[in-house]
Amino acid sequence: MITIYHLGLSQSDRIVWLMEELGLPYDLQWFDRGDDFLAQDDYHALHPTATSPTIRDGDLVLTESNAIVEYISHRHGEGKLSVAPEDDKYAEYMYWMQLNHNLQSAFFAKMAAGDQADENSSMIKTMNSRQRRYYSHLNNQLASNAFIIGDSLTCADIMAMFPITMLSGMTGIDLADYPNIQAYVERVSARPAYQKAMAIAGPSAQRPE
Amino acid sequence: MITIYHLGLSQSDRIVWLMEELGLPYDLQWFDRGDDFLAQDDYHALHPTATSPTIRDGDLVLTESNAIVEYISHRHGEGKLSVAPEDDKYAEYMYWMQLNHNLQSAFFAKMAAGDQADENSSMIKTMNSRQRRYYSHLNNQLASNAFIIGDSLTCADIMAMFPITMLSGMTGIDLADYPNIQAYVERVSARPAYQKAMAIAGPSAQRPE
Repeated sequence: MITIYHLGLSQSDRIVWLMEELGLPYDLQWFDRGDDFLAQDDYHALHPTATSPTIRDGDLVLTESNAIVEYISHRHGEGKLSVAPEDDKYAEYMYWMQLNHNLQSAFFAKMAAGDQADENSSMIKTMNSRQRRYYSHLNNQLASNAFIIGDSLTCADIMAMFPITMLSGMTGIDLADYPNIQAYVERVSARPAYQKAMAIAGPSAQRPE
Repeated sequence: MITIYHLGLSQSDRIVWLMEELGLPYDLQWFDRGDDFLAQDDYHALHPTATSPTIRDGDLVLTESNAIVEYISHRHGEGKLSVAPEDDKYAEYMYWMQLNHNLQSAFFAKMAAGDQADENSSMIKTMNSRQRRYYSHLNNQLASNAFIIGDSLTCADIMAMFPITMLSGMTGIDLADYPNIQAYVERVSARPAYQKAMAIAGPSAQRPE
């Protein structure tokens, strides 16, 4: 059985969501952030570069969302939520699997620049322009697709929901400007597996008693 | 034949390297950065979120290194430099495929914070600590491996060389502190395919006449 080392609040909620979508059992271990909102020593002890999420599967301790979702999908979910190299949509899938990294980069850059961020600085301009391009592109992609890669849920959706719902507002993006994304978020949020996962490990969830 | 839209100087040099390792033909189209060191309108016109690298294969225009190297490896290189989900080293491979994104995030955050970077700010502390963890982990990984995933070159190496060689110094990392990484860089730099690729599209390469 897979153990999810859940850092609350963090994007490790997507692994809970993935497990619920695949109908797989898991053990959730909750880790609190410190007063500085950073992961603490107990979390860092899990893996040499413990970012969130981190999981255990037998002797394997694995961190990095992209690695974890593909690993679980292939090794425990018969590849169901992945798109194979032979598939027509493989390139598109691989492209959208990187969205989270890119939106996170922009988030980190803006947080690092903080109040002193000079909107005219080259890096902040680049990050702002990148963000707008990604949101516009995703909005266009969702004009004709119920999910990011066509008609059914894939790991690309599992990767995308956290940055879209949690990082947008914190980085100056108003989803009301992107109606197809807003409708997509509502569509995904209505899924029982998503609702169950968010109740267990989402941004408002509490450490179990 | 694949077209590589090469933004000089940029990490699109890794796609030239990949093609040389796989012995595949390609057409290189060179794009210059502007005086502000940013990609210009001609490059952005290639794809809605044109980051570097970007390639064309028939009707497909694809951006994002992770997507491109897996696509080319699987569709044109018989999967030779990839590690398949069935392989014992799959999780490890997927983990190291994310190194570039993480080192880039730290780079963007530090550049965005710029001269005003407060070394005590929570985000800069996090980025510094992450960087050190990644370099230490990679240094340990290379203690017993000639390449990142064992004895032979994979896409994980194709992904790693640019951030290790180009972003380390710019983000306060001295490779002399990581002797196994330094030896690895020398080992990879001695490969004929790497040398040819760097001569064509590396950091010191010039737009062809």
